[in-house]
Amino acid sequence: MEKINLFDLVSPLDYRYYGSDKKIVKELSPYFSEKAKISYQLKVEEALVQTFAKKKICSAKIAKEISNAIKKVKPEEVYKEEKKIKHDIRALVNSIRKRVSKKAKPFVHLTITSYDVVDTADALRFKHGVQKTILPELKNFQKTLIKLAKKEAKTVQVGRTHGQFASPVTFGFTIAEYVDRLGTRIEAIEKANNNLVGKVSGAVGAYNASSLILPNPLEFEKLLLKKLGLKTGGHSTQIVEKEPMLDLMHAIVSAFGVLANLADDMRHLQRSEISEIYESFGSKQVGSSTMPHKKNPISFENVKSLWKAFMPKMVTLYSDQVSEHQRDLSNSASGRFSAELFTAFFIAVKKLNKTMSNIKVDRKQMAQNFNKAADSIAAEPLYVLLAFYGHQNAHEYVRKLSLKSEKQKKSIYELALNDSKLKPFLDNFSKKQLNFIKKPETYTGKATQKTLQICKKWK
Amino acid sequence: MEKINLFDLVSPLDYRYYGSDKKIVKELSPYFSEKAKISYQLKVEEALVQTFAKKKICSAKIAKEISNAIKKVKPEEVYKEEKKIKHDIRALVNSIRKRVSKKAKPFVHLTITSYDVVDTADALRFKHGVQKTILPELKNFQKTLIKLAKKEAKTVQVGRTHGQFASPVTFGFTIAEYVDRLGTRIEAIEKANNNLVGKVSGAVGAYNASSLILPNPLEFEKLLLKKLGLKTGGHSTQIVEKEPMLDLMHAIVSAFGVLANLADDMRHLQRSEISEIYESFGSKQVGSSTMPHKKNPISFENVKSLWKAFMPKMVTLYSDQVSEHQRDLSNSASGRFSAELFTAFFIAVKKLNKTMSNIKVDRKQMAQNFNKAADSIAAEPLYVLLAFYGHQNAHEYVRKLSLKSEKQKKSIYELALNDSKLKPFLDNFSKKQLNFIKKPETYTGKATQKTLQICKKWK
Amino acid sequence: MEKINLFDLVSPLDYRYYGSDKKIVKELSPYFSEKAKISYQLKVEEALVQTFAKKKICSAKIAKEISNAIKKVKPEEVYKEEKKIKHDIRALVNSIRKRVSKKAKPFVHLTITSYDVVDTADALRFKHGVQKTILPELKNFQKTLIKLAKKEAKTVQVGRTHGQFASPVTFGFTIAEYVDRLGTRIEAIEKANNNLVGKVSGAVGAYNASSLILPNPLEFEKLLLKKLGLKTGGHSTQIVEKEPMLDLMHAIVSAFGVLANLADDMRHLQRSEISEIYESFGSKQVGSSTMPHKKNPISFENVKSLWKAFMPKMVTLYSDQVSEHQRDLSNSASGRFSAELFTAFFIAVKKLNKTMSNIKVDRKQMAQNFNKAADSIAAEPLYVLLAFYGHQNAHEYVRKLSLKSEKQKKSIYELALNDSKLKPFLDNFSKKQLNFIKKPETYTGKATQKTLQICKKWK
Amino acid sequence: MEKINLFDLVSPLDYRYYGSDKKIVKELSPYFSEKAKISYQLKVEEALVQTFAKKKICSAKIAKEISNAIKKVKPEEVYKEEKKIKHDIRALVNSIRKRVSKKAKPFVHLTITSYDVVDTADALRFKHGVQKTILPELKNFQKTLIKLAKKEAKTVQVGRTHGQFASPVTFGFTIAEYVDRLGTRIEAIEKANNNLVGKVSGAVGAYNASSLILPNPLEFEKLLLKKLGLKTGGHSTQIVEKEPMLDLMHAIVSAFGVLANLADDMRHLQRSEISEIYESFGSKQVGSSTMPHKKNPISFENVKSLWKAFMPKMVTLYSDQVSEHQRDLSNSASGRFSAELFTAFFIAVKKLNKTMSNIKVDRKQMAQNFNKAADSIAAEPLYVLLAFYGHQNAHEYVRKLSLKSEKQKKSIYELALNDSKLKPFLDNFSKKQLNFIKKPETYTGKATQKTLQICKKWK
Repeated sequence: MEKINLFDLVSPLDYRYYGSDKKIVKELSPYFSEKAKISYQLKVEEALVQTFAKKKICSAKIAKEISNAIKKVKPEEVYKEEKKIKHDIRALVNSIRKRVSKKAKPFVHLTITSYDVVDTADALRFKHGVQKTILPELKNFQKTLIKLAKKEAKTVQVGRTHGQFASPVTFGFTIAEYVDRLGTRIEAIEKANNNLVGKVSGAVGAYNASSLILPNPLEFEKLLLKKLGLKTGGHSTQIVEKEPMLDLMHAIVSAFGVLANLADDMRHLQRSEISEIYESFGSKQVGSSTMPHKKNPISFENVKSLWKAFMPKMVTLYSDQVSEHQRDLSNSASGRFSAELFTAFFIAVKKLNKTMSNIKVDRKQMAQNFNKAADSIAAEPLYVLLAFYGHQNAHEYVRKLSLKSEKQKKSIYELALNDSKLKPFLDNFSKKQLNFIKKPETYTGKATQKTLQICKKWK
Repeated sequence: MEKINLFDLVSPLDYRYYGSDKKIVKELSPYFSEKAKISYQLKVEEALVQTFAKKKICSAKIAKEISNAIKKVKPEEVYKEEKKIKHDIRALVNSIRKRVSKKAKPFVHLTITSYDVVDTADALRFKHGVQKTILPELKNFQKTLIKLAKKEAKTVQVGRTHGQFASPVTFGFTIAEYVDRLGTRIEAIEKANNNLVGKVSGAVGAYNASSLILPNPLEFEKLLLKKLGLKTGGHSTQIVEKEPMLDLMHAIVSAFGVLANLADDMRHLQRSEISEIYESFGSKQVGSSTMPHKKNPISFENVKSLWKAFMPKMVTLYSDQVSEHQRDLSNSASGRFSAELFTAFFIAVKKLNKTMSNIKVDRKQMAQNFNKAADSIAAEPLYVLLAFYGHQNAHEYVRKLSLKSEKQKKSIYELALNDSKLKPFLDNFSKKQLNFIKKPETYTGKATQKTLQICKKWK
Repeated sequence: MEKINLFDLVSPLDYRYYGSDKKIVKELSPYFSEKAKISYQLKVEEALVQTFAKKKICSAKIAKEISNAIKKVKPEEVYKEEKKIKHDIRALVNSIRKRVSKKAKPFVHLTITSYDVVDTADALRFKHGVQKTILPELKNFQKTLIKLAKKEAKTVQVGRTHGQFASPVTFGFTIAEYVDRLGTRIEAIEKANNNLVGKVSGAVGAYNASSLILPNPLEFEKLLLKKLGLKTGGHSTQIVEKEPMLDLMHAIVSAFGVLANLADDMRHLQRSEISEIYESFGSKQVGSSTMPHKKNPISFENVKSLWKAFMPKMVTLYSDQVSEHQRDLSNSASGRFSAELFTAFFIAVKKLNKTMSNIKVDRKQMAQNFNKAADSIAAEPLYVLLAFYGHQNAHEYVRKLSLKSEKQKKSIYELALNDSKLKPFLDNFSKKQLNFIKKPETYTGKATQKTLQICKKWK
Repeated sequence: MEKINLFDLVSPLDYRYYGSDKKIVKELSPYFSEKAKISYQLKVEEALVQTFAKKKICSAKIAKEISNAIKKVKPEEVYKEEKKIKHDIRALVNSIRKRVSKKAKPFVHLTITSYDVVDTADALRFKHGVQKTILPELKNFQKTLIKLAKKEAKTVQVGRTHGQFASPVTFGFTIAEYVDRLGTRIEAIEKANNNLVGKVSGAVGAYNASSLILPNPLEFEKLLLKKLGLKTGGHSTQIVEKEPMLDLMHAIVSAFGVLANLADDMRHLQRSEISEIYESFGSKQVGSSTMPHKKNPISFENVKSLWKAFMPKMVTLYSDQVSEHQRDLSNSASGRFSAELFTAFFIAVKKLNKTMSNIKVDRKQMAQNFNKAADSIAAEPLYVLLAFYGHQNAHEYVRKLSLKSEKQKKSIYELALNDSKLKPFLDNFSKKQLNFIKKPETYTGKATQKTLQICKKWK
């Protein structure tokens, strides 16, 4: 096996986030590594001869012989051959052909073109990779969030809009946002993943070569792809239509955006002045190389940072929709980088799941923060109810009362009770309604109910 | 009406591509202009009081009074009021309130927050705009392409990969690619459009205010949105979840990419050396200010250029997924620009449709180009059939034959017939098979069949 | 003058940020509007005939006649003519030609190509616009920041890294960061602006046409451009090299990033829990349509949001570097949008300048926030000095002391003084050194000195 | 040394473009690999103690001891230590400290913060990498282009705008475009590279810790950075100002755009219908896995594709300008990816240089293509000269003549000579002027002169 020193590499994804963790390498390399690429390309070549055999184009024996040869091909030799002939798929084909009998040789890669192999193999390995690694990890993560949301469904938290205190929510409700957004993304990923297509239509997509020896090359293509577990696209040129894979990438990147938002929210909740949650810290972990007291939200920062590094790849992918005529190769190198996006996303999900599983909620601090806001929060129910009971300028009246409350350091509730102009309206308030103003911590609307509803929906 | 000189504007979209064409303004402004934004926001305020009346929160009379007032509000006054109070939706609300009786005043905007109005109105106007302008235009365009594809289903064209002559296709097949890719995009746009959501859940999404006076605010929200024709989202904060709109934008931008690819293909087919198609030229149209003989593919260039101008907006939209806690406003200004993307896309579709409706195919030139390639094209069927009939090194053998053919200026067919090493294999070729090598213009595989199949599917 | 209803427009830049403020329209439209584009193109046509006269290609009288005609051309008629002949610059030329005598007609636009006019005019108007509007506004803004930085040079503020309390700075030092970063950006903009180039080299850049009648067309080009105040590029095709304008755009966008960072910092300092600064609020200004007590950092949010809307335009500009052969037009439409970027940036600078001029610093709150951190801050000087005086494990020792201090609610200073193991080291501390640990608010390093140094440098 | 199987990697940059070529690894890894990162960080730590010694903070002996220890630290052990304590720089520090005496320990990393090391090391290694690998390669490449441009300075080539035949140039002039554009980019890279800055200002940039033991920490910083060969920035927080590095990245990416444009031009010139140049092909090289006759412009396609993959990284870099307060870490992971951009760019330059060194110009084909255009080319000089000699409607007249020429298959020259209305004007034409219309291949303006001028300028 050709090996390289990890520290000679230039991609942080390889040497740091993926390659330095053997468990992750083991989990992801069957789908997203270069080895995987080649091994799936071999699967496509194998499916070809097997379908030939089924359709009596070659004998079952020949198909078997080629299958056996395929199992022996190693990435190293393919790369070595490519160096010589400067063509990756021909190198793969040569590596198979040299292992089989003269009789079998002609059937290897017969009638198909490189991108029948490349695009079909990529669709298949990414489909499997998403099914086997990304979706399970995402679902685990959603479970973690559901558990947290349910646990904190009633924990009152001050709402924050524009960074300013706003109406109350519960911390469970805060988390439920991500349960739901993640849920729609999981669905989007699953749907797009199931729509991935392959092709076996030859050099320009018109089944030219396969028409030479097959009576029904369209049916043959469908059969071969079905065997592999892929759909057939509506049209193809030398390559499959870019849109099905683009849809999957969009689903992934938009899910990455949800992670970034959650990570951002959580790191802000860890700000020294807020401190409502904290990442549990290993006993030997160091926060700062010079400030011994620091505890930094590094996992959350890291997830947001990875998102910033990988989200712009969508620009490349949208650019790659444009390919001249029956295709030009100027999306070949760029297309190879797709595997990076899956890998980075998987790592971000795993990291965020681990961190969210271990965060501690400081309910006491959460309550203290709420209390600082409590008084101004009462302004909203007061305004709404005054308006409801007929006050014609409630919003403006309460806005001024709010400024007064701030100046005089008195609660809005107190000021309102002693305001003779408001009395006629307050008299109509039900006891429960009045209580919302007196005890703003009860003014959480349907936060708890909604939280539980969402958790139930996505279970 | 506040007016501005068109030539004082800074956005080319406004002064050039959209605003200088009164028909387009008339068609699009009901959905994508600032006027549309405000008018849809008023629709949401109206739906609110109507649902209040239905739920007996206010009388039918009051709801009617407010409805009538709403019909009179003009964008100008909203902007004037906003200048004073620095809040767009409060300005809208004030513009309604000042027109109604003291009794009615309190029910205007009662319990809801600005973004209940903003996000719901945007979802609705974009949904309508897509249904009424973009989808019909796209479908018209697809019809144009289907007509062309069918007409040219049998017109042989040389395939081109890497800008090099490749196996033959038909020009109809070339166009069928775009029929199909456009088709999947139309479906994607429709699906995403139907998934747009609104919200009536208040300042932090927890129904705090509406819970004060409504027994079941979740049902109320559903009712109100259904009345408008929108779905309710799974969770909301101050704003709706960004993902449903993002999915629509992705569908639009990925459709834009298909247009860009088509435009690029067509302009390359107009290269002087290729000249297989041409845009019909107005008799007064000028190609170049200094070169009087020029006929430039300006419409195709224009569509590709608009795509380059608007595709990167996805970066903004992905960035806007991240909003702190119950939201920060740093996606407000950027969010306003979404209307531009719809408008630019519509204009590109319309322009491309018009141009594609009028392109002329120069079949003679197409045939001449094919003939230049004909000889080298024969290499593929020869290789495939040699391999099929047992030649063990067909690819390499034909590659060399191909070089020989180039040097000796003899056809591959001729060289093959006179090659004693090949004779044993050629003897097995059927007449039809041999004919593919002799007359490569018949070697179009299933191009015609596939073209017709695709046209039928999307009709 | 052709007018359009402001509310029929689709670009928020036009109807909201720029077009709704007559003062800004007046200031910017001479450079960045479509009117400006046409008027500068006319300037180039005028410079051409004037240079012809100078070089005796035509008479001074003819040049004068054409100059006079040019002054009468209106954008409306150019657009009307373009609708007919589908060529913008030919339309411009026709609008001049129809106004001059038969003798003069031939000299209008003689030997030059459209993009000699388009690219030269754009370079010139953007250069002027940057000089006359953007740079002065930026320098004003820097003055605002310098004033603030000097005023707050000694106001102690807790440093924050990762959102966590860190070593102390002063608020002036916080602002000085932006004085300096803005300074380097102003320099970068000035430098790039001075490097903008024009061209008068004809349809493919080889001076083909001008060589017909001019003995030295390269010298002629230099003369004409010098007259306008522009440099000549090193090479041109139909268009000027893209890189000089790209460098300017990069300078602008990277300055926009500095604004975004400042805006972000300031809005975080306005978070309810931090509240160290606040935007002064108009007495009629409304914070929230439902929460009457809210005061939102809308200007800061707005600037960050505009940055998110416009920064990705760099992707378009980088894409537009690629133009086929002597140019293809697929960067024409996209190129028209550059004016938007200048406009949006100017508006962001103006807005931020206004807001920063009016922010209030709550020094009391700043001191209170510092005090919450004070104790943990003492950890750093303690560790550094212990290490300096020979403690071999100071970082780890202080980290543990820090945890102890948190648990026992005792100050680090107190714990250290009573720690017998530390005594031998503390005995070496100078009085001033010991004081840093006792009174961490003195531990601001060179924050004040550096602030004043930076302010002086950029004055 | 920790090794990984090349085919287990996920980044194509690592396993394919960089890692599979041992020569490139050897050349680039000293600057752009993870090993380089760590080794430069050690250099910074070494410079610190050496400057301490110079300033008598520690003895020369201690500095020497630490220097010696630093030389023994290996990346593997740093990574291993980081796994334990979750802090990369502290892990580096521990790896040094464990190797030195008790007396020396305290001086390791004394007073500085992680990013004093990280940012300074990155600036230095990238600066060196650009100087030692990227700039030399770029200059070699420019030499290749200069050689080609000079060789083909007089080879007439038809100009192409919008893909349409336009006025003539020479192939040397076509190449001279890239000589010049590359030249300005080399200058931009050099300038930006020389502006890179480091920092030694501690955890929040205010020299808090260093002020404890150094009388003049600003001078100390300058001294240390000068020793390393770096400038000091104007202001720093925990990190250096992002703009100097951003400027370098912009210079690199804009140079990458020039490469992409050249690659695109060259691959279009290789289109089957154009065939003016070709890449020389290895005798064993395979063009297509199924079409044995194909010769694809894979190197050019590859360079354009790499550009598409890496250009969007600018979005990440612009985003990373925004860092909260004295910094947040959400630009840490994303920042690590910068090394990829340098590597990819270097590989693209090297590849393009190699390909351009070997392209063959088919002058015969170039002449044939020109001849197809020759007749229509004559339109421009005819129009210009007619106008110059007083024809008042020359552009329109020649446009119609051009259409006539096309229809009647007669040369413009012939038609003009026989056109009685033109006679009075043609009589004024000089012999040389008339010749341009008769022999359009002489109508190359100053193409050759300009080519040589540019080559001379950049030599």
